[in-house]
Amino acid sequence: MSAGRGAAPAMLPPRVEVSPLEPTLRLLRAELERRCPEDAVGLDALERSAMLPPGKLLRPLLFTESAAAAGMRREDTLTAALGIESLHVGSLVHDDVIDSDTLRRGRPTVVARHGTPNAIVTGDALIIGAFRAVAACADGMPAGERHLAVVRTLADAGVDLCRGQVMEDELRGEPGSGLERYLTMVSLKTGALFRAACLGGAQLAGAPPAAQEAFTRFAEHLGRAFQMTDDLLPHISDAETSGKSVLSDIANRRPTFPVLLCWREADEHERGQLSAALGGSLPAEAALETVRGLLASTGALEAARAEALAEASCAKAALLDLPGTAARDALSTVADLSVNRDR
Amino acid sequence: MSAGRGAAPAMLPPRVEVSPLEPTLRLLRAELERRCPEDAVGLDALERSAMLPPGKLLRPLLFTESAAAAGMRREDTLTAALGIESLHVGSLVHDDVIDSDTLRRGRPTVVARHGTPNAIVTGDALIIGAFRAVAACADGMPAGERHLAVVRTLADAGVDLCRGQVMEDELRGEPGSGLERYLTMVSLKTGALFRAACLGGAQLAGAPPAAQEAFTRFAEHLGRAFQMTDDLLPHISDAETSGKSVLSDIANRRPTFPVLLCWREADEHERGQLSAALGGSLPAEAALETVRGLLASTGALEAARAEALAEASCAKAALLDLPGTAARDALSTVADLSVNRDR
Repeated sequence: MSAGRGAAPAMLPPRVEVSPLEPTLRLLRAELERRCPEDAVGLDALERSAMLPPGKLLRPLLFTESAAAAGMRREDTLTAALGIESLHVGSLVHDDVIDSDTLRRGRPTVVARHGTPNAIVTGDALIIGAFRAVAACADGMPAGERHLAVVRTLADAGVDLCRGQVMEDELRGEPGSGLERYLTMVSLKTGALFRAACLGGAQLAGAPPAAQEAFTRFAEHLGRAFQMTDDLLPHISDAETSGKSVLSDIANRRPTFPVLLCWREADEHERGQLSAALGGSLPAEAALETVRGLLASTGALEAARAEALAEASCAKAALLDLPGTAARDALSTVADLSVNRDR
Repeated sequence: MSAGRGAAPAMLPPRVEVSPLEPTLRLLRAELERRCPEDAVGLDALERSAMLPPGKLLRPLLFTESAAAAGMRREDTLTAALGIESLHVGSLVHDDVIDSDTLRRGRPTVVARHGTPNAIVTGDALIIGAFRAVAACADGMPAGERHLAVVRTLADAGVDLCRGQVMEDELRGEPGSGLERYLTMVSLKTGALFRAACLGGAQLAGAPPAAQEAFTRFAEHLGRAFQMTDDLLPHISDAETSGKSVLSDIANRRPTFPVLLCWREADEHERGQLSAALGGSLPAEAALETVRGLLASTGALEAARAEALAEASCAKAALLDLPGTAARDALSTVADLSVNRDR
C-alpha cells in the first residue's frame, strides 16, 4: 500500500518550472533551425554557424510577443522576428572582428573559426538578410504599408546601433564622461534593437499610434534595465557564469554603469585613483583591486542595482497602457528576467 | 567688317560634347552633397568620407533612368537611387578592409584613413542606410507595395553580392575554374546591383511585369559587359589610367575573364605555364611576362573584347522591348559606355 501510494507520484511527470516564454521560444528555435539547415554550404553555412546554437533570442521574443499583444498570431510573426535576430547577430559578428574576440556564448566566434574576410561577409549577409526577412514575410499579405513601416523601424535602429558603437568608442577610458552620455549610448547601442523589436512587432500587427508609443516606452526602459544589469553582472557573479569579466571591461577601457556611478559619488582623490586604474597604467590585478575597492566604498553596485530595478519597473508600468493579454504578461516577464539573471 | 564677322562666333558658348547622362548625374551629385553635408561629425562624417567625392554613380544612374523609362519623374527617384549607391559603397568599404587596400578612386580608403573598426561600422551604416533610403522615400506616397518590392529587390541583390564575394574567393588561383562559374560569379558580384538598380527603378515606377523583365535582362547583360571590360582594362591601358593593374590581379590570384579565355584556348603545355604564373611561384615580373605572352598567343584579349561588345549589344537589344523614351536612350548610352571607357 505504502509502495502503491509511493509509486503514484513517480508516475507523474517531474514538476519543473516552465517559463511562460518557453512556447514562443520553442516556435522561434524551430523556425531558426528550419531556416538554417544542417546541410547548408558556402555563405549559408557561415550564416548557420553564426546563428546556431541560438542565444537568448530576446529580440525576436520581444517582436513576437509585442505583435501578439497587438492581436497578431505568433506563427505569422516568426520570419520578421528572426529578421531582427539576424541584424543583431550580424552586428555581433562584426563586433567580434573589431574586438578580435575569440569566444562568444562559450564557443569560437565566426572570425576565430573562419577568418576576417568571411566574418565581414557573413555579418553583411546577416544584416541584409534582416531586411529580406521583413520584406519576404509580406508575401501573400495585402498590407505592404505595415511591412514597410517595419523596414523603416529596423533600418533606423540599425543606424542607431552603428552610432552607439562609434559613441561607445568615443567614451572609452573616460570614467568621468557622465551618466547622460552613457544613457544616450545605451539608448543607441542596446535600446535601438529593443525598440525596433517591440515597435516593429506592434507595427506589423497594425497597432494604433498610442499603443505603438507604449511599446516604444516599454522597450526604452527595458533596454536600460538590460544594459545596466549587463554592466553589473561581472561584479556580482564569477566570470565563468557571467561570461564576461570586470578585467575584460577594464582592459577594453569600457565605461560601465557601476563605474560611472562610482565616479559620480567619488571625491577628487578617489576619482584620481579610478582614472589611474582605468587608464591602463596599473598592472591588471592592481587595477581590479582598486576598482573593486572604490565600487564598494561608494556604494555604486547597490545604486546600479537599484537603478536597473527602477527601469524594469518603468518598463512594466508602460505595459499597463496596453490591453491585458497573455502576451502582455510575457513582456512583463521579460522585464523581470532582464534584471534577474546570471548571464 | 571681317573683325565683326570674326567676333560673332566668339560670342557663342564653346562647343563641347555634353553626355546625355550629365543632367541626371548632376541631379544625383547635388542630392548626394545635400545628404552628406560638410559639417557632418561622427558616423555621418565617416559616411561622407566614403561617399564623397562620388565615383561614376553608375548604379543610381541606372535606377533613375530605369524609373524614368517607366514613366516616373527623375526628381522623385533620387533618394532611393542613392540608396543603391549607399549599399554599393558600403560593400566597397568592407572589400577594402578585407583586401587591406589603401587606395580607391585615387585617394586613401576609409580603412586606411580611419582604421578597421570605423571602416566596418561605416560599411554597416551605409548598407543599412540603403534600406532606410528606400523606406524613407515612401513618405507621403500611397504605394507602399512598390517600395516594399524595391526593398526586397535590394535585399536579394545584397545577399547575392555577398555570395559572389564568397564565390570569387573560392575561384582564387584557379585559372581552369571555367567560364560558367566565372559568369555565375559575375552575375552575383557585379550583376546583382545592376539588376537591383534597373529592376528596382522599374518597380518604384510601377512598371508592368513584362517591362520589369526587359529591365532585368538589360541589366544582366550590362553587368557582364561591364565586368568583362573591367577585367580587360588593365591589359589594354596603362596602370595609371585604369586604376588597377595586371600585377595586382595576379598577386591576388583573381580569376579574370581574359585569363579564363586564355586557359580555354591553351594547350596542355601552355596551361602548365599559366598555372605556374598564377600560382605565386614565379617572381612577379616573370609571371607578368608569361601571362602577357600567353594572352597574346591565344588571342584571348581580342576574344574578351568581342564577348564584352556582344554582351553590350544584347543589353541594348533588351531595351527595344520598352517604349522609346529619352531615358531608354540614356540606358543605351550606358551600355555603350560600359565597353568604351578607360577606367
